[in-house]
Amino acid sequence: MTPEIFEKLLELLNSNSFNSLRSELSEFNEVDIADFIAKLNKDQTLLVFRILPKDLAAEVFSYLEPEQQQHIVQSITDKELTALVDDLYIDDTVDFLEEVPANIVHRVLAVTDAETRQTINKFLKYEENSAGSIMTCELVEIKASFTAEEALAHIRKTGVDKETVYTCYCLDSRRRLVGTVGLRSIVFASPDQLISDIMEDGDAIVCVKTSDDQEYVADIARKYDLLSIPVVDSENRLVGIVTIDDIVDIIEEENTEDFEKMALLVPNEDAYLKTPVVTLAKNRIVWLMILMVSATFTGLIIEGFENKLALISGLTAAIPMLMDTGGNSGNQVSTLIIRGLALGEITIKDYLKVLWKELRVALMCGSALALANFARMWIIGRISGSYAEPQQYMIYVVVCLAMFFAVIVAKLIGCTLPMLAKKFKLDPALMAGPMITTIVDGLALMIYFGLANALLTF
Amino acid sequence: MTPEIFEKLLELLNSNSFNSLRSELSEFNEVDIADFIAKLNKDQTLLVFRILPKDLAAEVFSYLEPEQQQHIVQSITDKELTALVDDLYIDDTVDFLEEVPANIVHRVLAVTDAETRQTINKFLKYEENSAGSIMTCELVEIKASFTAEEALAHIRKTGVDKETVYTCYCLDSRRRLVGTVGLRSIVFASPDQLISDIMEDGDAIVCVKTSDDQEYVADIARKYDLLSIPVVDSENRLVGIVTIDDIVDIIEEENTEDFEKMALLVPNEDAYLKTPVVTLAKNRIVWLMILMVSATFTGLIIEGFENKLALISGLTAAIPMLMDTGGNSGNQVSTLIIRGLALGEITIKDYLKVLWKELRVALMCGSALALANFARMWIIGRISGSYAEPQQYMIYVVVCLAMFFAVIVAKLIGCTLPMLAKKFKLDPALMAGPMITTIVDGLALMIYFGLANALLTF
Repeated sequence: MTPEIFEKLLELLNSNSFNSLRSELSEFNEVDIADFIAKLNKDQTLLVFRILPKDLAAEVFSYLEPEQQQHIVQSITDKELTALVDDLYIDDTVDFLEEVPANIVHRVLAVTDAETRQTINKFLKYEENSAGSIMTCELVEIKASFTAEEALAHIRKTGVDKETVYTCYCLDSRRRLVGTVGLRSIVFASPDQLISDIMEDGDAIVCVKTSDDQEYVADIARKYDLLSIPVVDSENRLVGIVTIDDIVDIIEEENTEDFEKMALLVPNEDAYLKTPVVTLAKNRIVWLMILMVSATFTGLIIEGFENKLALISGLTAAIPMLMDTGGNSGNQVSTLIIRGLALGEITIKDYLKVLWKELRVALMCGSALALANFARMWIIGRISGSYAEPQQYMIYVVVCLAMFFAVIVAKLIGCTLPMLAKKFKLDPALMAGPMITTIVDGLALMIYFGLANALLTF
Repeated sequence: MTPEIFEKLLELLNSNSFNSLRSELSEFNEVDIADFIAKLNKDQTLLVFRILPKDLAAEVFSYLEPEQQQHIVQSITDKELTALVDDLYIDDTVDFLEEVPANIVHRVLAVTDAETRQTINKFLKYEENSAGSIMTCELVEIKASFTAEEALAHIRKTGVDKETVYTCYCLDSRRRLVGTVGLRSIVFASPDQLISDIMEDGDAIVCVKTSDDQEYVADIARKYDLLSIPVVDSENRLVGIVTIDDIVDIIEEENTEDFEKMALLVPNEDAYLKTPVVTLAKNRIVWLMILMVSATFTGLIIEGFENKLALISGLTAAIPMLMDTGGNSGNQVSTLIIRGLALGEITIKDYLKVLWKELRVALMCGSALALANFARMWIIGRISGSYAEPQQYMIYVVVCLAMFFAVIVAKLIGCTLPMLAKKFKLDPALMAGPMITTIVDGLALMIYFGLANALLTF
């Protein structure tokens, strides 16, 4: 929606031209209407929501921000609320109820019929981020004994308020899932062909359990290119489906969580600009504290060597470069491994393969960096005029050797820790840059000082 | 597919029971069959591919790895190849052709009919990662003047080899897109209702241009919850669609690219285990070199202060902790901002809002860390027995103040650089941890030495 169109709509609203506004708005996609409403004040929000055609109102509602949803629900009559909840898909209602205070949940439940109330209550009880918590039960059931023609008639009769009709589900008498069939197959079948002949059954059925994590659900949907994925309970009875639009949101949500964990932030579901300063600070301070205290050990290593560092000028100056190069090398490989594990491209069984690969990469990177660093130190030495003493060259050698070994250690630790975390059922994403850096820093300094002790005369 | 099932299928293959194998395989999802073939050797691959029912073979082919696809195409007859290309969707053919050597591309083009060849050639010319390069032209066109019944008959007649029939497209006489309509709406409409009455038109049509970046295409599909998104040329003529299964892959691909860029890796489209060691090393060495050389400046700052560091014990030991805490603080905020920019939750216009937010977060985190650090240093001082001299307390004060200011500088730089990159049309993802750390390190040390000079007596 361009700013001009927004202004035009706002003008209609301000001049109370509600009929024109309604017919203008009906021309837009529900996502754009929600965008429009998001920019209005509270009174305007309610006004616009109320003039929307009834069939559009629920769709727009599901795209609004929780605060606006809450404001609308608090302001409309019980009758309007009943109509709204009636038109909303169960999964959108549950999403909304998970975000609002208890009194609003009670009010919504009070105006819904007994059956819907029971379903909502059941859905609210599934663990957060489980398949159960994100599914909807508004799906089309058909009988395997239907002909294609009967199936189409059945979809026309029962499908209008279902979240999707593009995949239909066949259940047996005990409500266990025995087949799935795409509307496409039904449309292309000859009218008297049986559903049981065209449905996917047996091993070809792809489904998840209510307790499965949403990340797993997304992985399965992505792998099999599904438009919706059936969710079954522990006795294999179909209880719901997760549709692709929610899968896409979950994928972005899970990626955001990985980005946050890799920066050692406590994951946060709200958008950055909407998160209060205190929450932002709280999400960051825990790990900053832990890492700061861990740096004590690196400090102690330096302290133990401080007297010697004071004797030879130039040794201290190389510390940041060694630490940074080690940290960056480790960060690169841990990122690749964490991502590979998340996408299923790498499994724990590949550990030795990964280690061998990283060892070779580390030898290449390490020697290239060590050589480049020697050249760098030599050039800077010439410029600053402190070259040519044999001791100076030995310092270069110590720094470059330390860098070589630091890169190798960093690469091996960078690939090992995420896989170790996975092995122990921890989140590999925590073993990213900051964590690796803290560990590699200490090791890099120990190598550096060890080499200095062995090769230099103090 | 469980290992037991795999063994069973392999046994059928090894005992040449091709008929049983074919009927067993037909029971599986094409993705699982591709998984099965992925574990076979070259001869077995070809054998299994050839015994697959014809309608399944092309689907399975599109899920195989490029090397296996190439091996199959090199080994089958021209007749088989014609049949395969005929059954493949154009976008899958183009994906495959982009990965194989020129001689295979020529062979494939030679066996296809003139029209398909022309289309493939056109698609191969679109810029990599543009909407044009990922779309397919196999879509269902219907007339706005059709009734719902006529539309359904038309879909039955023309839709069977289209990539999706769930959204149909209405064009005017100049092939410009005038409306989109879901199969759902067609099915639920009364038979004599006109498509023009039920289609989305005008402002409600969501489409992208052939030259749009695939990341933008994915953003639009995600925002509007679309199952397929129409692609138009510069004159608004419909040239193709991108389907949701490809969108999901693009989202993961773009996320992987961001993860890689944030670790300052040159992005790589192949899976980790399949990437040669030399490529891995090459992708990493560039930025490692640049950052190492940049660390020269940090080294020079220390060198300039080395004589004074030697005079007071304990000053050098605090350097790693200051650098790490600064780097980690900057990394946290830059991750949030990069992610917020990628998801469209933050725009450049929000800069002052972000800066003000980060300033407050930094004050909180900075003072908490400084206080904790004072306690930490005091405890370590007591344990090591070096407490109680007034100069020692002043060192604590200098380190804690330096930490406080380093955190503030890190947070402000961490939010500024990604937004600045965005402003100048660079990828914000480059302004992540490693880059921020290198910049913040130098500044943290300058603050530290400045404070030491001002507050300590050497």
